[in-house]
Amino acid sequence: MNCLRAKPLLAAALAGFLCLSNAVAQSVDSLPSWNDGAAKARIVAFVKAVTEPGSKDFVAPAERVAVFDNDGCLWAEQPVYFQAFFIRDRIKALAPKHPEWKTQEPYASLLKGDMKAVMAGGEKALMQLVMSTHAGMSTEAFTQIVSDWITTARHPKTGRLFTEMTYAPMKELLAYLRANGFKTFIVSGGGVEFMRPWVEQAYGIPPEQVVGSSIKTKFEWRDGKPVLTRLPELNFIDDKAGKPVGIHQQIGRRPIAAFGNSDGDFEMLAWTTGAPGARLGMLIHHDDADREYAYDRKSHIGKLDRGLNEAGTRGWTVVSMKADWKTIFVPTR
Amino acid sequence: MNCLRAKPLLAAALAGFLCLSNAVAQSVDSLPSWNDGAAKARIVAFVKAVTEPGSKDFVAPAERVAVFDNDGCLWAEQPVYFQAFFIRDRIKALAPKHPEWKTQEPYASLLKGDMKAVMAGGEKALMQLVMSTHAGMSTEAFTQIVSDWITTARHPKTGRLFTEMTYAPMKELLAYLRANGFKTFIVSGGGVEFMRPWVEQAYGIPPEQVVGSSIKTKFEWRDGKPVLTRLPELNFIDDKAGKPVGIHQQIGRRPIAAFGNSDGDFEMLAWTTGAPGARLGMLIHHDDADREYAYDRKSHIGKLDRGLNEAGTRGWTVVSMKADWKTIFVPTR
Repeated sequence: MNCLRAKPLLAAALAGFLCLSNAVAQSVDSLPSWNDGAAKARIVAFVKAVTEPGSKDFVAPAERVAVFDNDGCLWAEQPVYFQAFFIRDRIKALAPKHPEWKTQEPYASLLKGDMKAVMAGGEKALMQLVMSTHAGMSTEAFTQIVSDWITTARHPKTGRLFTEMTYAPMKELLAYLRANGFKTFIVSGGGVEFMRPWVEQAYGIPPEQVVGSSIKTKFEWRDGKPVLTRLPELNFIDDKAGKPVGIHQQIGRRPIAAFGNSDGDFEMLAWTTGAPGARLGMLIHHDDADREYAYDRKSHIGKLDRGLNEAGTRGWTVVSMKADWKTIFVPTR
Repeated sequence: MNCLRAKPLLAAALAGFLCLSNAVAQSVDSLPSWNDGAAKARIVAFVKAVTEPGSKDFVAPAERVAVFDNDGCLWAEQPVYFQAFFIRDRIKALAPKHPEWKTQEPYASLLKGDMKAVMAGGEKALMQLVMSTHAGMSTEAFTQIVSDWITTARHPKTGRLFTEMTYAPMKELLAYLRANGFKTFIVSGGGVEFMRPWVEQAYGIPPEQVVGSSIKTKFEWRDGKPVLTRLPELNFIDDKAGKPVGIHQQIGRRPIAAFGNSDGDFEMLAWTTGAPGARLGMLIHHDDADREYAYDRKSHIGKLDRGLNEAGTRGWTVVSMKADWKTIFVPTR
């Protein structure tokens, strides 16, 4: 934009000329994977309300912050969170160097593929697995590990790469919001460093716009070189009441639009829509067993119960994947 | 940019036309408050190296992350960090509600203006004062308190608003980097919520691009409304070895340019310049007693000792405020 900056008058004149065709641009459907219906209409009306100059709900571009959950909102999360597949694959890859894991729980059960026994170990077992696979290396080494995995690992049911299990309608929505001056953020319970290596390519969301759970890192000098090492110690859990905290900590602005799919997103939607002015809260409802999965109130993953009960009174829109989405996944390569 | 998006071919053609005058734009001095010299030449050469298409050091716009310390780098920090004046003013404002402070340390000494006695209380006393003034209210209430203070409080020596003690050459540098596709971040030991309310106006840096020290916040329901409350508990100290950690946590990219002024910035500069490719590390040296302050190796605030010793071998540029800066402060309103 250097050239534009140096010639503000010329640039302004040309921009004005280009914008004459604004009405035409607006009539192009930016959300082709969404069926015409209440959900799509709500999105378009909200965007119009906050972007149209002179609108009583106009929001300055800098304040147009939209936050998105990741698991079950931007990509699928069944039969388990995809990060759990990453953990399983890493434990398998590291096992040769850890002969003791053959008899030590929860590693032994995981290596035998007995996920039920792993889950029986509860949170403590899960944390052990997380730390064994996510800590103990430099931040750069971990980024490489995730990058290698995400470009090769495949979903057990669909055989797709996990990045091919991202939702086409949500990617259109992200692009549509950005085209209307929004800054889009991920706010996920997943590991922030598990997401950053691939979300820029998958969703157009840069690393600095990813809020997530994290372990601690430590700055060290190694052979005179600065290194950040990942420690086996929890830093932050970005879930439930942690989501507004994470948003405040990292973004420092209150969002005006929030998208989730489970009760883990309840506080984030409440925080976003609990301020005056036009606000958009949406819950993606997994009700399409044929094209994806159907689960809500009783699911162990992505449980959506309170959200369904209170969406109406809180003014949140429940999006039916079955009825509102023409397509579910992005095309395979 | 909606209109541009809809007409990509036309837009590209016009952008190309505008950029014909690129050479002219480049010849305009974007850093008029900088004297011609090694420091200015280094900045311009670095920006050219990372932005010129085909340059061996070219860096994609998304990766152009520049980090700036705040105290002593973007604004002054003498005779004490400006946040200390905020603390003093808040203690005074709150004192009527706390009659016990008249005899209780460190409050009593502070209210009497005996800063030496306050400092004698060490870190414990300082933390007490921080928590008494920064915690116990909602995040929104705190933002309002800071906003009210920053628009009225004045520096004891210059009589200027504190935002008028920001450095003109650094503001030009921020704008110059942004015009060249950089994303500019503050990475400061100061409180992140103390900075966010005013840095957007002062420096053009939005809240989500501010990394700083923080206390914990807690999500609560109050009368059915979601509230974030500030707790009297440290969350993160963004100083020294904490700076690369804070950068990694919030930005998630390794910067290619870093600007500081004290040994508190040493690790940040080392982390930034310790990767391959063109990197820029700069230390602002306070050597102008006439126009600002002169201090370095033995100062209690903004001590710069190791940085001066190692700048040469690490390839960092030491900027002399006296020799390199035509102007120090931004104009008063």
